[in-house]
Amino acid sequence: MLTLYSQQDSGNCYKPRLLLAQLGRPFRIVDVSTNDGSTRQPAFLEKNPIGKVPLLELDDGRRLAESGAILLHLAEGTPYLPADPFERAKAYEWLFFEQYSHEPAVAVRRSLLRYPERAGEADEVRLAKLLDAGNRALSVMERRVTDADWLAGSAYSVADIALYAYTHMACSGGFDLSLYPAIEAWLARVAAQPGHVPLDWRPPGS
Amino acid sequence: MLTLYSQQDSGNCYKPRLLLAQLGRPFRIVDVSTNDGSTRQPAFLEKNPIGKVPLLELDDGRRLAESGAILLHLAEGTPYLPADPFERAKAYEWLFFEQYSHEPAVAVRRSLLRYPERAGEADEVRLAKLLDAGNRALSVMERRVTDADWLAGSAYSVADIALYAYTHMACSGGFDLSLYPAIEAWLARVAAQPGHVPLDWRPPGS
Repeated sequence: MLTLYSQQDSGNCYKPRLLLAQLGRPFRIVDVSTNDGSTRQPAFLEKNPIGKVPLLELDDGRRLAESGAILLHLAEGTPYLPADPFERAKAYEWLFFEQYSHEPAVAVRRSLLRYPERAGEADEVRLAKLLDAGNRALSVMERRVTDADWLAGSAYSVADIALYAYTHMACSGGFDLSLYPAIEAWLARVAAQPGHVPLDWRPPGS
Repeated sequence: MLTLYSQQDSGNCYKPRLLLAQLGRPFRIVDVSTNDGSTRQPAFLEKNPIGKVPLLELDDGRRLAESGAILLHLAEGTPYLPADPFERAKAYEWLFFEQYSHEPAVAVRRSLLRYPERAGEADEVRLAKLLDAGNRALSVMERRVTDADWLAGSAYSVADIALYAYTHMACSGGFDLSLYPAIEAWLARVAAQPGHVPLDWRPPGS
């Protein structure tokens, strides 16, 4: 069975949980937290030298890090990755956009506001910069989903899963999603997809 | 013919130039710079709402942003993307690692030190944090290329191209590569690959 090293309230870890649920693939969870330093312990670094979750472990013990890589690997050959080469490339584009321009603002601002152990990093200047950067990223998304139902191509895909993760909790980072009506409608479309599960869902027995 | 909107001294833009050269695919360059604000002008934002280079424009006018997405799109079906699904997933992993953990430290520190217009952002605390983060990323690479010739799988791939771009110029960001002998040997292997071109190379006629 697949094993996912996962932090329950992390959007990055939610992405593979959501895709695995929608694929109907059984997996078990091993809980690891970045907040208590356990991803920086030698035992975990031995599994993932990058020191981050999520980490996917295959039946044969091989391991894969990076939420975007895990999504692409699990989605290959399924309807969750566009079959058309250019539409697939647009899914790649959204996955990299999420990791470079969206997550470091939208998710990091939430993290600074949410976790007491990070409060020392949350000065006003930094919070203001993150708000600007996050709103720029949300504006890019708003433009796309004003014209189209889904981020990449004409169907729901890993691009939507990747961007849904932190966008649907952006309010806890201080972002006002009422400024983005097309994003709000897209969030509702994603949540209405067959097999959708919320952030706090865990696979049976895990 | 393919068009690449590109900034010549940007490692992110070097990645697709290097792959296109090695694939022997003709393309033309349109020079755009992030430093003079031209990626934030309406005319460019119309082409790429993310406001960044590189941007690839296909013959039919469709456009693709994000260096990692461009690499994957161009490499599909070629020897530069592993055919084995797990090795391919490891290439994805390195591409996301580069954009999340390597480029924001190694490339950004270089940028702060190199471009006079960014000097105001280059305070001591920030430079020290970037040095730490960059050295963590380089240590992850060092560990891999101590045990293996290439980053993903058993052959040179887009993973090596993506990490080569800013690693080979890390010294200009104040990183001491002599601390990473396996990386230095790997850099030499990458530079010895057939069809390798340096950062300042441009396609004929461009």
